[in-house]
Amino acid sequence: MDYEKPLFFQVMQYAERAERDVIDMVSGNPDWEPPETLRDGLREYADRPVSEFQYPPSDGLRDLREEIASRRNVPVERVIVTNGGGEANYLAMAEALDRDAGNEVLLTDPVYPYYPGKTQMLGGEPVYVPVEADGRLDPTVVREHASDGTAAIVVNSPNNPTGAVYGEDTIEELVAIAEENDAILVSDEVYDHFDQSGRFTSALSVDSEHRAITASFSKSMAITGFRVGYTVLPPALAEPARTRHMLVNVTGSRPAQYAVLKALRETGPDYYEGTREMLATRIDAFTDALDSAGAQYTRPDGAFYVLARFEGFPGTMVNVERLIDEAGVAGMPGEAFGESRSEWFRFALVTPRAEEAADRLAGFFA
Amino acid sequence: MDYEKPLFFQVMQYAERAERDVIDMVSGNPDWEPPETLRDGLREYADRPVSEFQYPPSDGLRDLREEIASRRNVPVERVIVTNGGGEANYLAMAEALDRDAGNEVLLTDPVYPYYPGKTQMLGGEPVYVPVEADGRLDPTVVREHASDGTAAIVVNSPNNPTGAVYGEDTIEELVAIAEENDAILVSDEVYDHFDQSGRFTSALSVDSEHRAITASFSKSMAITGFRVGYTVLPPALAEPARTRHMLVNVTGSRPAQYAVLKALRETGPDYYEGTREMLATRIDAFTDALDSAGAQYTRPDGAFYVLARFEGFPGTMVNVERLIDEAGVAGMPGEAFGESRSEWFRFALVTPRAEEAADRLAGFFA
Repeated sequence: MDYEKPLFFQVMQYAERAERDVIDMVSGNPDWEPPETLRDGLREYADRPVSEFQYPPSDGLRDLREEIASRRNVPVERVIVTNGGGEANYLAMAEALDRDAGNEVLLTDPVYPYYPGKTQMLGGEPVYVPVEADGRLDPTVVREHASDGTAAIVVNSPNNPTGAVYGEDTIEELVAIAEENDAILVSDEVYDHFDQSGRFTSALSVDSEHRAITASFSKSMAITGFRVGYTVLPPALAEPARTRHMLVNVTGSRPAQYAVLKALRETGPDYYEGTREMLATRIDAFTDALDSAGAQYTRPDGAFYVLARFEGFPGTMVNVERLIDEAGVAGMPGEAFGESRSEWFRFALVTPRAEEAADRLAGFFA
Repeated sequence: MDYEKPLFFQVMQYAERAERDVIDMVSGNPDWEPPETLRDGLREYADRPVSEFQYPPSDGLRDLREEIASRRNVPVERVIVTNGGGEANYLAMAEALDRDAGNEVLLTDPVYPYYPGKTQMLGGEPVYVPVEADGRLDPTVVREHASDGTAAIVVNSPNNPTGAVYGEDTIEELVAIAEENDAILVSDEVYDHFDQSGRFTSALSVDSEHRAITASFSKSMAITGFRVGYTVLPPALAEPARTRHMLVNVTGSRPAQYAVLKALRETGPDYYEGTREMLATRIDAFTDALDSAGAQYTRPDGAFYVLARFEGFPGTMVNVERLIDEAGVAGMPGEAFGESRSEWFRFALVTPRAEEAADRLAGFFA
């Protein structure tokens, strides 16, 4: 089975064993601070009575679900809090496949590697839709790949690894394609706070029984280890998803939900804007230096990854190791994200040393 | 689908709406304090650098796995930390069924309601093995129900809801039956710290490729809402279970794992003994008063539930509601736990008012 973590760990391990200083651009782990009140949330929770250390409702703390519902403008009944975006995607994909409305799951190529892994585990068949060189997804191409056999169309915007952001027209067309084929559009919006283009459109903006969204506080609050995410599903899928969630996990972890609730209530737009601006600076610095290195790349419109390609130096695991040893920069091999980007490297801008990393690359390729 | 929570919520809701004082003996939520250092663990974690707010290893914090491995005397590679005992059972049952070695899951009747729910979700077929009136499980009867079609035998000792504790002979026989039928014994040991009989035997004490154990800190540390459990699987199932865990949940919640690790390291046997003694006192008081009420019951050897039956007053939902309204005691209807105990009520000793509850029952049935 093909998924990100083992390859990710392999690269991390190799980088750790290197005898030189290596700048880590491998993981998707934010290196910036969470919202200020998140830590207070944990401290507050530590003093709560033991009754609050017991099972929260299976679909999440009611107050947290209400905060999410009011922000996303959906009825609270539609919100299921999950063990991070990972479980949210699992639930949405499982219920899309469980409808007996086809067995195929449309994915993009390049792809976030967990999607094919989940598809296979759930007995579905991945069908890959190529995206444009710059990461844009052409709905016409999606439509060509869709059929009666399509159970789900899984997209991620802002996108990991391409940095593409799908605008309103694309999202509307994707929902229409899902409707035409009795499929469920699963719109993974975990990077929704990291849109640099102003064009990000949530699938929630299109009313339909054929679209689900998945989301998480992992990236927006810099807490990938807390495991608090959620899904908003079509009404027909919400109840079976609740049952599945209960039978797999019973419920999510309450200390994390409590801290996220406090941070969600008490964090203003400044925090998210600050992170976006900081990342914009990193993107500028890193892509400027990529220019000096003669790399091919597309400037990301969102999320915090850059795909880059160097003439005569394909993004294989062997070359990932060479970059670690000889340039002191660790990235991910493109092959982790599907066939179309096997020549490329993915660099995650989760280090204050992004500019230094790009300078090192420029030096290496000079 | 049949599982505990909805019925549980129904009873809880009814009890909350009652106009009188009601003693809650419905949930499995401990009402006693967690280990002292657990709260400190959360406070400590709140001050950790942001790097420690990111994904722990998928199979759990290494230090936590090592603490568990050393206590359970298994190699650390065998321990997978899960999102509570619920996910541990899900993983073990899923991998037992995924071997193409049969489709049937042997469960006991009475049964913990999540097991049939999980079995059905996983496409398996529950086969019920009746237990003795006092809750004992006769391996001869298990053997009669086992066959080539048996994928898993799922048992829970100390048992919810019967309070039975399976001794060494029973566990050895269950492992032997699993081996004879190419099945996996899934031994759910979440109440292992609540053995009042001294006879509790972990399935880990029998070396075999055909036994898995599942466990959790939910009950032993009085933190059902934290969601930290683990499973020790046969080597052949450990890798597919890791993959499934990663694809469903990515990983468990790190604040909770950190706090449990600290509490596990710094909590001596006194804490667990203290809880056991407190529960023994509750068992004495409750069962003495049940005698006065003329109830039929078996004194639990472990866990913290009592099944009781009152002449001419079967444990239906209607009678559960009558007990709430007229006696001020809320219990679970026996039908939640399978056909064999539909005449019974389950009372959870998770309230300091257990004796008062039993006195109320005695008064009601006088």
